[in-house]
Amino acid sequence: LGGVLPSVCLVYETWGRLSARRDNAILLHTGLSASSHARSHSGNTKEGWWEHCIGPGAALDTDEFFVICVNPIGGCYGSTGPSSPNPMTGSPYGPGFPLITIGDMVRAQLLLLDALGVEQVYASVGASLGGMQSLMHSALVPDRVRRLISISAALKSQPRAVALRFVQRQAVMNDPAWSEGHYYGKSFPHRGLGLARGIGMITYQSGEQWNTTFGRRRNPGESWLDADFLVESYLVHQGEKFCQIYDPNSYLYMSKAMDLFDLEPRSGGGVGPSVADIRSPALVVGVDSDMLFPVQQQRDLASALRQHDCAVTYRELETQHGHDTFLVEQRALGDLMRAHIEAS
Amino acid sequence: LGGVLPSVCLVYETWGRLSARRDNAILLHTGLSASSHARSHSGNTKEGWWEHCIGPGAALDTDEFFVICVNPIGGCYGSTGPSSPNPMTGSPYGPGFPLITIGDMVRAQLLLLDALGVEQVYASVGASLGGMQSLMHSALVPDRVRRLISISAALKSQPRAVALRFVQRQAVMNDPAWSEGHYYGKSFPHRGLGLARGIGMITYQSGEQWNTTFGRRRNPGESWLDADFLVESYLVHQGEKFCQIYDPNSYLYMSKAMDLFDLEPRSGGGVGPSVADIRSPALVVGVDSDMLFPVQQQRDLASALRQHDCAVTYRELETQHGHDTFLVEQRALGDLMRAHIEAS
Repeated sequence: LGGVLPSVCLVYETWGRLSARRDNAILLHTGLSASSHARSHSGNTKEGWWEHCIGPGAALDTDEFFVICVNPIGGCYGSTGPSSPNPMTGSPYGPGFPLITIGDMVRAQLLLLDALGVEQVYASVGASLGGMQSLMHSALVPDRVRRLISISAALKSQPRAVALRFVQRQAVMNDPAWSEGHYYGKSFPHRGLGLARGIGMITYQSGEQWNTTFGRRRNPGESWLDADFLVESYLVHQGEKFCQIYDPNSYLYMSKAMDLFDLEPRSGGGVGPSVADIRSPALVVGVDSDMLFPVQQQRDLASALRQHDCAVTYRELETQHGHDTFLVEQRALGDLMRAHIEAS
Repeated sequence: LGGVLPSVCLVYETWGRLSARRDNAILLHTGLSASSHARSHSGNTKEGWWEHCIGPGAALDTDEFFVICVNPIGGCYGSTGPSSPNPMTGSPYGPGFPLITIGDMVRAQLLLLDALGVEQVYASVGASLGGMQSLMHSALVPDRVRRLISISAALKSQPRAVALRFVQRQAVMNDPAWSEGHYYGKSFPHRGLGLARGIGMITYQSGEQWNTTFGRRRNPGESWLDADFLVESYLVHQGEKFCQIYDPNSYLYMSKAMDLFDLEPRSGGGVGPSVADIRSPALVVGVDSDMLFPVQQQRDLASALRQHDCAVTYRELETQHGHDTFLVEQRALGDLMRAHIEAS
């Protein structure tokens, strides 16, 4: 949005082998907090976030496909982001990093596909922010996406989701240690980022699930203002874990990119990619207990794609796992994805 | 919970006249942020928060009933709370205020009813925190409550609601100006309390409603980190308004009292009031779009009351106003309440 990155580094991981015809690549997009480590491999044996969806015989079958997962720009897993050194100064970009959009993330990935010689991906796949990227991918370059999978994503961010991310950003920025984004090499805004992650966790999971998991159990000996209930210590713990892996400025940029996402066709035509540009046969998956990307948005997305003559398979999962279903219900999602990928 | 207040002041407002037999009193309990000013009167002509539910000919008919609305202890509208001077020191209690429960709030109100010579109220009425008070009132002294009305309340706080209030308290406490609760006469933790209120507003209203009210409209000229979307400036504005009227420590205490609320019968009998003690014929009202007190909790409350031989009228409102329905849909609620109050 006006800014320019003088150079861009993209960190990615791959599974399987690119075919001689370079027609078997599946581009997998990450969510907000996940890295490109979607599945374990010899270079990193740690379980990935989609371990059961990728591999020999899995839905994203590495015997057949070449799966690529890229860390989007703006993040903090190696690809250029606010914590990367600005080549002009040698110091981290920090708040001087340009405002980026999901379109920018996808354009950077297209440069990678160019470099790999992949003209068209066999499928562009993602959930949450990743689903927004897969939709954007198909809208930007419809001819380069043979199949599209969008899980728990949306055509655009609704005001409630914007509000929920806004209060998370405020939590980070209210922390004096954030220092207007200039905290590198100084004290880390862990209270702010931890609180933001705690708010996020509430939006990723479901109340029904927490009734079962936590109920009204208490932590003995805690002050009433601290993590008195079990659900409270869970949020604190998730916040602390997140502070070990995530850069607060990246959180602001990635969260804002989601708010800005809008593939609604502009009235009177207008500029920029929209759902009207998408032509890839699409699998759209919604989850009934998702409060961040409500199931109605999934139905609306499927309808909008159909309205623009896109072939759409729409599926709903009934689970108690809310927005996190894409991480938890990998077998069920795998079955849906396999059917879509195998369909001619 | 172990603490003792050496003296308690209760500020309340009334409408109508107490009958000679003192049998026409309706005790109205407030929510978290509302004061006792439920309706305008000659001493304060400002519109009250339940203006249309109280008055001559209204559901709480002041031609017939004596309506009392009390500011609960712990709050900041005149009744004893953390911002009140501790008579032992002359300075505000601050964080030295004892942890209070909804049972404590109701016990203080019973002292007021004693002072007014009201042995039994004609009805105990409330929504949200107020509904929790009306349920507690009937559980504590079943013979003193002739009818019970609970709107958008619950039998107990669920972990998701606890989590949502926890992150609000963290937002207050993360503000360095909060100073562990010792901010009186110093700088006010307005960023923290404003953010807490912003989070609260998301839980009080519904996503559907915001799609209509705000959509994706932007505020021209705002930085992307500030109130860029209209829904964001709304949250900021609500936060600023709240800082004009509410004490941050009161927010912590009142919010925690809601978390601690639990009228589930203790296994093996146990001590303390429970739903099993309630005998007053009850009107329970739920709202389908309420995410803070989900409609399933309303059905569970009605079932639990029935299971303990309580006569229950259960009604559900279908609105887009979420938890705030009790403030917005006063006519519809008035009709439901009138029918319950007029039933013999």
